[in-house]
Amino acid sequence: MSLKSIKEAATSKTAFEPLLSLRWGEDKLIMLDQRLLPDSIVMLDLYTPEEVWESIHAMKVRGAPAIGIAAAYGVVLASKDFGGNQMNDWLSHVLKAADYLATSRPTAVNLFWALDRMKAKAEQIAQSAAGDVTTWHTELLSEAIAIHQEDEEVCRKIGENALPLFKDGMGVLTHCNAGGLATAKYGTALAPMYLAHEQGIKFKVYADETRPVLQGARLTAFELQQAGIDVTLITDNMAGMVMSKGWVQAIIVGTDRIAANGDVANKIGTYSLAVLAKAHGIPFYVASPLSTIDLSTPTGAHIPIEERPASEVTEGFGKRTAPEGIKVFNPAFDVTPNEYVTAIITEKGIVKAPFKDNLAALFN
Amino acid sequence: MSLKSIKEAATSKTAFEPLLSLRWGEDKLIMLDQRLLPDSIVMLDLYTPEEVWESIHAMKVRGAPAIGIAAAYGVVLASKDFGGNQMNDWLSHVLKAADYLATSRPTAVNLFWALDRMKAKAEQIAQSAAGDVTTWHTELLSEAIAIHQEDEEVCRKIGENALPLFKDGMGVLTHCNAGGLATAKYGTALAPMYLAHEQGIKFKVYADETRPVLQGARLTAFELQQAGIDVTLITDNMAGMVMSKGWVQAIIVGTDRIAANGDVANKIGTYSLAVLAKAHGIPFYVASPLSTIDLSTPTGAHIPIEERPASEVTEGFGKRTAPEGIKVFNPAFDVTPNEYVTAIITEKGIVKAPFKDNLAALFN
Repeated sequence: MSLKSIKEAATSKTAFEPLLSLRWGEDKLIMLDQRLLPDSIVMLDLYTPEEVWESIHAMKVRGAPAIGIAAAYGVVLASKDFGGNQMNDWLSHVLKAADYLATSRPTAVNLFWALDRMKAKAEQIAQSAAGDVTTWHTELLSEAIAIHQEDEEVCRKIGENALPLFKDGMGVLTHCNAGGLATAKYGTALAPMYLAHEQGIKFKVYADETRPVLQGARLTAFELQQAGIDVTLITDNMAGMVMSKGWVQAIIVGTDRIAANGDVANKIGTYSLAVLAKAHGIPFYVASPLSTIDLSTPTGAHIPIEERPASEVTEGFGKRTAPEGIKVFNPAFDVTPNEYVTAIITEKGIVKAPFKDNLAALFN
Repeated sequence: MSLKSIKEAATSKTAFEPLLSLRWGEDKLIMLDQRLLPDSIVMLDLYTPEEVWESIHAMKVRGAPAIGIAAAYGVVLASKDFGGNQMNDWLSHVLKAADYLATSRPTAVNLFWALDRMKAKAEQIAQSAAGDVTTWHTELLSEAIAIHQEDEEVCRKIGENALPLFKDGMGVLTHCNAGGLATAKYGTALAPMYLAHEQGIKFKVYADETRPVLQGARLTAFELQQAGIDVTLITDNMAGMVMSKGWVQAIIVGTDRIAANGDVANKIGTYSLAVLAKAHGIPFYVASPLSTIDLSTPTGAHIPIEERPASEVTEGFGKRTAPEGIKVFNPAFDVTPNEYVTAIITEKGIVKAPFKDNLAALFN
């Protein structure tokens, strides 16, 4: 299949220049504060691993791939701040920063994947023992930039692999934000939408607002609207009604971690959507880079689910919307068992059940 | 079964004095502005049918039974303002006000039920042709007060009929607010919770926050917390996860209209819950007074579903949370087909399938 790439789309007449969540700026990481969208576009200059840790923890950057990229640059910032000139000291300084950054959030596996890759690179640099601290630092930075650039390429390929699912007149429902803002560029679940739009396919997107943090309303609706894609915002609890009306022919979501058996951790509410999709006979697709598939986690039951502060639910909008002292359950993610997943769309192609075998085969 | 009534509970040691949504005050309707809860408790004095219409329309009062009661008092306010002394003029003035009040919201059948009852009363007064305008007005007021008081009694009976469903250690999930604030007192779905709590049964309630207007967070969580009931607030999209964890043994919701075949119109999101309940083998109960059952509506497909302004979704918290100009779908209600309904709990007992026959039998 010959497809115009999204890169070409970006220079075409209908193209738009998407807002980038992350950029490297010589001695700093430049990060879009996604919490403030769509109201304000504020770029943060981050100079230390601590600032990166806090930004991931506070969800200024979010989305599994973007979290991984940010953490990789966080390791580079630690290297930049290294005051000595001994290789062993540099290595231990950098590895310590990586372990520290790994504590910023527990669920998205890309965080650990990117940090493991940065640690392996640091160890490889240490083994070669060439050059001085400036050489070591530059090589480490190259690895972070590679992670960043590869993610853009991976997202583009996911988009191309998912594109055949799109037909004229169809409706697609998505949850949270698995778009350009969640990745280097283009997104995972949203990448095929950008491509399909560029190909002139007419389709509608229903975007769940995604309480409590409203990534769907603030980010997905914003991204797709900017790109000129026909998007309708709904509250999460409208998804069932929208499906029952026959308006949705596919659900596509991103993911924070896929276990070896194909169980999918993703933003809270994804599981409800998958159950509703099955009840309505609608296929449920998960768009995921290989870096989000964690063969070392056997099933979804082994994925740690982050619980976040009650205030996200009770004061999510700068205003208290629930009584003082109310008990709140606020898991950031849920796990969708593999039997609800029609297919996982990766940069290496579309994977169907049996997921245990077929996911493992991807890595061979 | 010998039960302490909620009335007795209200005088017991553990009792609390619930906030009332509506009170009659000689020449005015005193209405709690539910939009401001739980932040502020503001009582509004309404002197005209127009003010009542606007309050129903803007959801200062909401909940099917409470809407019906408010509308009944709205007709009384029209009668109070009648300037003439001719019976025919009075009757036409009052009937016109009732028809006007019926246009305030389209879905909740209690609105039409209460207004039809007020119109029938006005016609009966006109036929008897006794007394003067003061007599007519007083008789009409008595009918509104009767509707109001009967609702309290009906809710208490629904609570008693639903009480056997409650067991020690169980979890109950509810949606929106079908509590005291939605009715004269006690509520429909919440009435058995007040009774079970008074009986010393230990149970947990999960309250969906219920976007877009957050009746669950602002009203249900508030009511149950005030009563000392163990309540946990969740966002709507967490309900599936909470069910999958085995924390929920029953779902109980209210309703705005039940069709003759048992299809249930209720707050948006109810349908999704019912589908999720079925997938998890959890019984799904609807608490409903007979006044909410509309045998003249054959199925759910015949129930008009109100669509409300986009701003409820995009600026629901006094702050814009979605991009300007975004397309929004905002239905206030959805319809749950009867096959998802385990039972309907009324003041006359618990009704199961076949609903068409069994609902009709209730009215004989």
